[in-house]
Amino acid sequence: MNIREEARKMKLVAPVLAASSNEMRNSALRAIAEALAANKEKIFAANAEDCRAAEEGGIAPAVMKRLAFNESKLADVCKGIDQLISLPDPIGKSLLKRELDAGLVLERVSVPIGVIGVIFEARPDALVQISTLCLKSGNCAILKGGKETAGTNRVLFSIIRDAAVSAGLPAQCLLQAELHNEIDELLQCEKDVDLLIPRGSNQFVQYIMNNTKIPVMGHADGICHIYVDRDVDMDMATDIIIDAKTQYTAACNAVETILIHRDIAPLFLPRLARDLKAAGVKLRGTQEAEDVIVRSSEAAEHIDAVDIMGEDDFRTEYLDLVVSLKLVADVEEAIDHINRYGSHHTDSILTRDDAAAARFMQMVDSAGVYRNCSTRFADGFRYGFGAEVGISTSKLHARGPVGLEGLVTYKYLLNGSGQIVGDYASGRSSFHFRDL
Amino acid sequence: MNIREEARKMKLVAPVLAASSNEMRNSALRAIAEALAANKEKIFAANAEDCRAAEEGGIAPAVMKRLAFNESKLADVCKGIDQLISLPDPIGKSLLKRELDAGLVLERVSVPIGVIGVIFEARPDALVQISTLCLKSGNCAILKGGKETAGTNRVLFSIIRDAAVSAGLPAQCLLQAELHNEIDELLQCEKDVDLLIPRGSNQFVQYIMNNTKIPVMGHADGICHIYVDRDVDMDMATDIIIDAKTQYTAACNAVETILIHRDIAPLFLPRLARDLKAAGVKLRGTQEAEDVIVRSSEAAEHIDAVDIMGEDDFRTEYLDLVVSLKLVADVEEAIDHINRYGSHHTDSILTRDDAAAARFMQMVDSAGVYRNCSTRFADGFRYGFGAEVGISTSKLHARGPVGLEGLVTYKYLLNGSGQIVGDYASGRSSFHFRDL
Repeated sequence: MNIREEARKMKLVAPVLAASSNEMRNSALRAIAEALAANKEKIFAANAEDCRAAEEGGIAPAVMKRLAFNESKLADVCKGIDQLISLPDPIGKSLLKRELDAGLVLERVSVPIGVIGVIFEARPDALVQISTLCLKSGNCAILKGGKETAGTNRVLFSIIRDAAVSAGLPAQCLLQAELHNEIDELLQCEKDVDLLIPRGSNQFVQYIMNNTKIPVMGHADGICHIYVDRDVDMDMATDIIIDAKTQYTAACNAVETILIHRDIAPLFLPRLARDLKAAGVKLRGTQEAEDVIVRSSEAAEHIDAVDIMGEDDFRTEYLDLVVSLKLVADVEEAIDHINRYGSHHTDSILTRDDAAAARFMQMVDSAGVYRNCSTRFADGFRYGFGAEVGISTSKLHARGPVGLEGLVTYKYLLNGSGQIVGDYASGRSSFHFRDL
Repeated sequence: MNIREEARKMKLVAPVLAASSNEMRNSALRAIAEALAANKEKIFAANAEDCRAAEEGGIAPAVMKRLAFNESKLADVCKGIDQLISLPDPIGKSLLKRELDAGLVLERVSVPIGVIGVIFEARPDALVQISTLCLKSGNCAILKGGKETAGTNRVLFSIIRDAAVSAGLPAQCLLQAELHNEIDELLQCEKDVDLLIPRGSNQFVQYIMNNTKIPVMGHADGICHIYVDRDVDMDMATDIIIDAKTQYTAACNAVETILIHRDIAPLFLPRLARDLKAAGVKLRGTQEAEDVIVRSSEAAEHIDAVDIMGEDDFRTEYLDLVVSLKLVADVEEAIDHINRYGSHHTDSILTRDDAAAARFMQMVDSAGVYRNCSTRFADGFRYGFGAEVGISTSKLHARGPVGLEGLVTYKYLLNGSGQIVGDYASGRSSFHFRDL
């Protein structure tokens, strides 16, 4: 397949999809859900084949779980499609309507982004989520999934595309890339692809960002912090930190660094260290953190508990049962550390002190800034967006979990009755700017 | 000056400016306007020096006009600052407030983008507009103006920066780059600069886009179209086309291509050609356009009026008294031509037919789509935004004229009371998503 040619065709068909009614897009989503259910045996068979091959290839059990597409995953994606259908149309919304002068009316309306390329990990449910999010938001999509589920993806994609087309959407609205070298071809399509959303490892996302002129939305790093302030409920703090570190270690919103107020460290850090170790977490940290733990009454079981680390190590994203520990003088030092070493993803303060919390939430320059809860809440479903195509640490356009709203932009419509600029430049006419 | 080091310092001070109150930012703007007025003789003297040097260097008279900074330009920029002061605070706005569960409240608030680099043409008033727009929106800015007004810029910049700092804004909130090689240094600051806004020639903007990893907002081309539909008021159409082509030829929103419905061409095109030529405009176009003109009753004065051009020439931005002419079968062909050869900037349909207008405004994939008015209205002041830092043809973040709203993004704040994700994953807790 020639990706460039296909992307060119898609670009020219994008306004047709953008002009489709919400009813037609919803009926396409309904047709997709029905077709997935009707063809489930075929999907499960292809998936069993993929899983068998992956197992023979010696894949890690944690990854294995993601490859599977079974009755429960099917039920989940169909529930997700139902949610998408129930959400209001994100396109065609009037965002501003202003009379500039008599008979000259400006309007800003939401429109799809156009053609979006999504490159994602080997998770068949992701293919369903991403393609249906793109269709609901009126966007054409080029999809490239992980190779370990290529067979499942092929079956899912053809079911989804056929159902969408049968419901009246244009034939070129969805395209699947299957070969790895097609990714490099896709990166060259800056004239026709409006946005790339890469999901995957830090190195992979960096590679995409460094090798294309197409705007990229997403994140390379997820170095999330929890700062434990002086006045804190220590039971709550422990529960939150254990959840943020261990509930799903491989997630980008899992915590990597715990900053602790120096005044509470002698009381809090030894018990936190004990509980983290009990949960299987390896500890790294500054010499001072080590000293506080060793000096505590629970020293016997904690001697050498902490691997001493240097400042630059705080830029490490573990994605594993490992955490960095550091003591700070106050909320200001915590803010400075996070803005300097963090990745502007999601950071949380645990405190009873409203002033410290307000300062932290104002000054930390991240897509998500939390108080008294786990960083793991950074997720489109948990924000009530239905689903997400990814999480953005970019500050332009969409930040944080990207759902339907992050998949649209706007255009300005200006309706006149013969107005020319010369009349306004000469003073013969003048604007009156009245919002309607 | 080491731009990288300065940008690093600016990045760490950006949250301080972001946290400043609207009152403080407005009082800084007031101080700037007062200081400009108080120091006007110094500014005018520096500007006279720049203008003299430019004149000796043999600069074009049209450009000369842009270099000048006199009483009337001073009055204009001070009026612009007053407008900015009167506009509501663009930061700290609550864009979404949702209770996810009891005691767990998500909020999306607008925040500044952070550190913005603006590279602009030799126009002293632009320096004042850009720096005050950035300060009002809570953004730190690195400014690099055209070299022809370097002396004026130096005086203006130090007045503006000193006034801002005296009003309480952080000392690093504004920085001026003066050397051309500092631009290349700035392009390397992707860790600390959040956004670049280049203004200037197509080649210059392309150079910036191709040589940085920093997101770039703006436009390289402004290939704007006017489509004259079959049922049109021909006097109005002529006035609009003359305005869009000649009122300010060097502007990106000046029209470059006129598409004319084939049915009305024999009546309309010869008179349009005559009026354009009378206004000093050179005509280029297809053989068919030439034939229609030559065959008309006014042929005598129009023989060889049109330089015949090929399809690919329709991608040319003239920025001069030259226009391309082409006949099309209907609104569909006009839409196809514009989406294929245009630059997604601003395009206008002239018609009495509501259905054709609706189709055109829906299907043309540009930042501005107009009906029955001049493309020259694409401008921040004319949209009622007070001023603009530029016009964006990108679809991400900001599109069209970029004013205060285009200079902010948002962050998500989540206030909890000890919530952990494990409880929601296990079903012990569940979200109730209630918008507040």
